[in-house]
Amino acid sequence: MLRGITVGLGFFGNIHLEGWGRVKGAEIIAAVDKDKERAERTAERYGIKPYTDLIEAIERERPDFVDIATRPDSHLSIADIAASRGCHVLCQKPMAPTWRESSEIVRLCKEHGVRLMINENWRWQPWYREIKGLIESGIIGDVITITIVRHDPDALYETPFPNQPYFVEMERFLLIESVIHPIDVVRFLGGRIEEIFCDMRRVSGVTRGEDNVYVHLNLENDAWGMIYWTRCSEGDLEEPICDYARVEGRKGIIRLDRDGRITVKPLFKPAFKHSYEIPDVGYRGDSCKAALQHFVDSLTSGEKFETEGEEYLNQVMRAIFAGYESARSRRAIKLEEWEEG
Amino acid sequence: MLRGITVGLGFFGNIHLEGWGRVKGAEIIAAVDKDKERAERTAERYGIKPYTDLIEAIERERPDFVDIATRPDSHLSIADIAASRGCHVLCQKPMAPTWRESSEIVRLCKEHGVRLMINENWRWQPWYREIKGLIESGIIGDVITITIVRHDPDALYETPFPNQPYFVEMERFLLIESVIHPIDVVRFLGGRIEEIFCDMRRVSGVTRGEDNVYVHLNLENDAWGMIYWTRCSEGDLEEPICDYARVEGRKGIIRLDRDGRITVKPLFKPAFKHSYEIPDVGYRGDSCKAALQHFVDSLTSGEKFETEGEEYLNQVMRAIFAGYESARSRRAIKLEEWEEG
Repeated sequence: MLRGITVGLGFFGNIHLEGWGRVKGAEIIAAVDKDKERAERTAERYGIKPYTDLIEAIERERPDFVDIATRPDSHLSIADIAASRGCHVLCQKPMAPTWRESSEIVRLCKEHGVRLMINENWRWQPWYREIKGLIESGIIGDVITITIVRHDPDALYETPFPNQPYFVEMERFLLIESVIHPIDVVRFLGGRIEEIFCDMRRVSGVTRGEDNVYVHLNLENDAWGMIYWTRCSEGDLEEPICDYARVEGRKGIIRLDRDGRITVKPLFKPAFKHSYEIPDVGYRGDSCKAALQHFVDSLTSGEKFETEGEEYLNQVMRAIFAGYESARSRRAIKLEEWEEG
Repeated sequence: MLRGITVGLGFFGNIHLEGWGRVKGAEIIAAVDKDKERAERTAERYGIKPYTDLIEAIERERPDFVDIATRPDSHLSIADIAASRGCHVLCQKPMAPTWRESSEIVRLCKEHGVRLMINENWRWQPWYREIKGLIESGIIGDVITITIVRHDPDALYETPFPNQPYFVEMERFLLIESVIHPIDVVRFLGGRIEEIFCDMRRVSGVTRGEDNVYVHLNLENDAWGMIYWTRCSEGDLEEPICDYARVEGRKGIIRLDRDGRITVKPLFKPAFKHSYEIPDVGYRGDSCKAALQHFVDSLTSGEKFETEGEEYLNQVMRAIFAGYESARSRRAIKLEEWEEG
């Protein structure tokens, strides 16, 4: 049984802890938060030990891994503490607010011989797992275009972003905080990212950073990823449970509606509904728990993480920082040519 | 009653002639085609005179206008013949295969004091007229994003593009031949185009030119137009009658489904269906006939054409040629900075 510590007990830290309670092969033994009252309250709820200091927690508890669920600007220092004490690291996305810090997290984990997985729950959402399986079955042939569209109107609420009100203060917001998810989904479904064009705007007027983003990705094998995300508009007409997505292949298409329905249409043949089960527990189709389970399983088996740190750095974080540069310079940027400017 | 001559009696010339038969205030008196047999056959069908030579037709018939329905590479020479003989010009889109020829058509018409309208039927499709009216009613507030998506699988037919098989030979195909339509719709619904980013691919393998295009437009007032068109994929599941489109405003969205249904969702309020009538005669909601009627009405009243030649040149044709340059150079191009390279 692996033993872990969760750091950061805000909105998402609590989602983690709930998920950990159902993961097999690991247990969380302590929870760390700078806010003592919050640490104690959370620890009591989950029957684990509270700490306000990670170093103390590691030295007393000797965990196998540290689960980082704090805000991005603290990830490097926490990863440093964990890695230098021989703990494997599960780091919430985005890795860090800058390329330098993100790279440093990878370097530190490598130096100390610990493993690093980025906690990216979207690719674990059951609809995307199903779509991946359908693609692998060959029914739509090679992937040509992946479109992911998300409409959230939460910048327009009277109190914007109720779960994460600090979003309004972020200088860089939507691309690095949110669009990072479908970027990882696109590479999950379509392959390596080679080039990014990005456009972004401030639409709502309430955020310091961008709240509306278009991302155009050129993938290996000449496939495209096209992502549009707004926090300032309602897109669909019913209560959505996921994104709208469409995967076009050379022999058909797969469509994901916002109610979670998946439809497959082989070229020139009738469409059919693809039935699958959506767990009704946990967060977004129980995707967080699935990501945690993958971390534990891969640590145990020695297999590569799907979102292994160095690859995630060079694919997803590189796309993010190149994306900001693209929006500024009004040009598409090849990932391999991008350097911190 | 205005009197006109139609030149070019292929797939689209016949659609024109059918529409002209129902236009008020004008009549077509002669049809011109290099192919004598086709000219005679068509003229007989419509009870008008056949010609193989436009100059002869103009000199004998003394028409008020010439309706050009030939392929783009002949537009300049035909416009030259018409304008220099004092005939107003209705010119099928695209204006011409090159910027120089397109500009020359505008210059010639100006020099000879005749009026020039580009025949662009898409903005006359009833769903787009309805959407325009809804936008003008203020129900969704200022426009933020216009998305138009079209899937046609006709490059994948055993005989590709049955109506226009010459598409496979065009060196530049989808952007200038087809995506030009939604580009004009975007400016119709969202305002002036300021910048274009464009990506394009050859997907089917049967066309010389691009058969899959993404266009990203920056419009005045910081609005976006996002257009995706493929001839190598089926998008929707039922028999489509139009494009999929979505107009997001600051106070709501308008959605056009491919069956022609328009849904309006004012922000944080229930969605409702917007009912309207779709003519069941003519081409694509009788949009060709509506464009012809607009030409005649504006010629008669002296009012400006919606798709007046010089403005169309500097907005739509400029976007097309800048779009090819964008796809090549991998950068967004401001229309006012674009020059023939």
